[in-house]
Amino acid sequence: MSQPPYIAVIGPGQAEPPAEAVAEAVGALVARRGGVVVTGGLGGVMAAACRGARRAGGLAVGLLPGTDRADANPHCTVALPTGIGEARNALVVRAADAVIAVSGGYGTLSEIGLALKMGLPVFGLDTWELDPWRLPGPGIRACRTPEEAVDLAFAAARR
Amino acid sequence: MSQPPYIAVIGPGQAEPPAEAVAEAVGALVARRGGVVVTGGLGGVMAAACRGARRAGGLAVGLLPGTDRADANPHCTVALPTGIGEARNALVVRAADAVIAVSGGYGTLSEIGLALKMGLPVFGLDTWELDPWRLPGPGIRACRTPEEAVDLAFAAARR
Amino acid sequence: MSQPPYIAVIGPGQAEPPAEAVAEAVGALVARRGGVVVTGGLGGVMAAACRGARRAGGLAVGLLPGTDRADANPHCTVALPTGIGEARNALVVRAADAVIAVSGGYGTLSEIGLALKMGLPVFGLDTWELDPWRLPGPGIRACRTPEEAVDLAFAAARR
Amino acid sequence: MSQPPYIAVIGPGQAEPPAEAVAEAVGALVARRGGVVVTGGLGGVMAAACRGARRAGGLAVGLLPGTDRADANPHCTVALPTGIGEARNALVVRAADAVIAVSGGYGTLSEIGLALKMGLPVFGLDTWELDPWRLPGPGIRACRTPEEAVDLAFAAARR
Repeated sequence: MSQPPYIAVIGPGQAEPPAEAVAEAVGALVARRGGVVVTGGLGGVMAAACRGARRAGGLAVGLLPGTDRADANPHCTVALPTGIGEARNALVVRAADAVIAVSGGYGTLSEIGLALKMGLPVFGLDTWELDPWRLPGPGIRACRTPEEAVDLAFAAARR
Repeated sequence: MSQPPYIAVIGPGQAEPPAEAVAEAVGALVARRGGVVVTGGLGGVMAAACRGARRAGGLAVGLLPGTDRADANPHCTVALPTGIGEARNALVVRAADAVIAVSGGYGTLSEIGLALKMGLPVFGLDTWELDPWRLPGPGIRACRTPEEAVDLAFAAARR
Repeated sequence: MSQPPYIAVIGPGQAEPPAEAVAEAVGALVARRGGVVVTGGLGGVMAAACRGARRAGGLAVGLLPGTDRADANPHCTVALPTGIGEARNALVVRAADAVIAVSGGYGTLSEIGLALKMGLPVFGLDTWELDPWRLPGPGIRACRTPEEAVDLAFAAARR
Repeated sequence: MSQPPYIAVIGPGQAEPPAEAVAEAVGALVARRGGVVVTGGLGGVMAAACRGARRAGGLAVGLLPGTDRADANPHCTVALPTGIGEARNALVVRAADAVIAVSGGYGTLSEIGLALKMGLPVFGLDTWELDPWRLPGPGIRACRTPEEAVDLAFAAARR
């Protein structure tokens, strides 16, 4: 059995309803195309992406920073406490073939940096804009809709 | 949705057919009871446990040491490259509610030590015998059959 | 013996001479005040900061992503291969009481995000400017000189 | 400047006075030969090894499991909180060229397993005896004195 595309959906653990709606749509679209959603397993954008994936019949993975599985949002198919704290951000992106950032705080910024450092494609929906004077590469590809982000992420993941 | 029990099945990446048969039976029994099988994602005992789980309709998670998903055995439902090398052994046991060791080399020994240090229950099927003069606690509970190991692991995981 | 302040000096592994001169001055100033310089152990800004610290008689720590100590720049007092890849970025900032960013690529961006997420003070010398519309807190305190950055970092580390 | 040998001294965080005396002697001998002592940074055997190294004028590194530098024993030259919990055991051995185990609980057992898995030479002073029926390689070389262990560790580290 060959592996499906894995798409990390990253964003803050506390998010406004519009950001959660976007993340839920992203999760659902990834699942409908047969992709696996990877998240940090907590609330906000992470929970919304998992909820979208599960409701669409897909798989949602949560890689938790702490040691307690009960910290996971209730929508994770697979919830894995890592016990390595913020270092788990590197695992979230390492586990992915492409990354979609929705909104974002500092943790999200770190995951964007890690993903770009690893050479992963990153697509953004109302997320950080990176300093254009500093940017060594393509950076975050800004998208307008969940459909556009998921289309581009699947195209990039296939390569 | 509350989370099912997660059972780590640990053992060497190259194993003899009898050890693989035992690991496959363990994977199948865990899956039939609704548990999630967690492994290091590679071959041998890990692949056999995943195969058993998948054939029984269950979920098999592989936490890979390297950065390439293609290293995973073909039976992982979810295959996650971690990129953290042998440090991923700590994640395999941290993600579990109970551990079943089948046969074993040095990596397995390290996972047994990590699990016991974390206070996780460890059940053994033809695996390392720990030095009785050194043992600070219950150590590995030796089992005779996959059924016995899975029964005890589920009972321990529920606590 | 109580521990001295630990200051992470973060920046790209390949840097222009002016950035290296700034990093070397930062390393020297940290060492002269009795601080320990923590870096990712490789070249560019990391090597320059270590060189500055060593020449001033101080301690320079390098936390390497790979498994080979020979990857370290020659100025590390203590060079530690971690074998955990980009996840070591979390260790570099976790080991620090304050962070000084000099220039920077994507790895540096990830360390800035991780440090701010952990609540560590971050001081910048010609580094990333963070999107002001997204910033949830103080972000990076921009400094004009190595002296200013080191003064502020020591003041923040003491708290 | 080329790097000196790094010797991990592993053992329990709570130890009897004889084990601490052995660990302190090991730390001192490593330091006198110009080696760097690497430990998990906590008490018991770890603290004793660091104390021996410091009193002999050497360097002692502590890689802590938690996020607070104040957890370190007072003899660490360099104390690094990693925040990755028991996964730091992999870093302690990965940072070393050879490993000396003194006494030992489950954490020590895990480090022995990780070191042997990584192909590192492991020397033991009154530590775990490994199941001879299971042993795939040389295992732990049992030593009778700190001098013997340090002699063999330096010879092995040089290769």
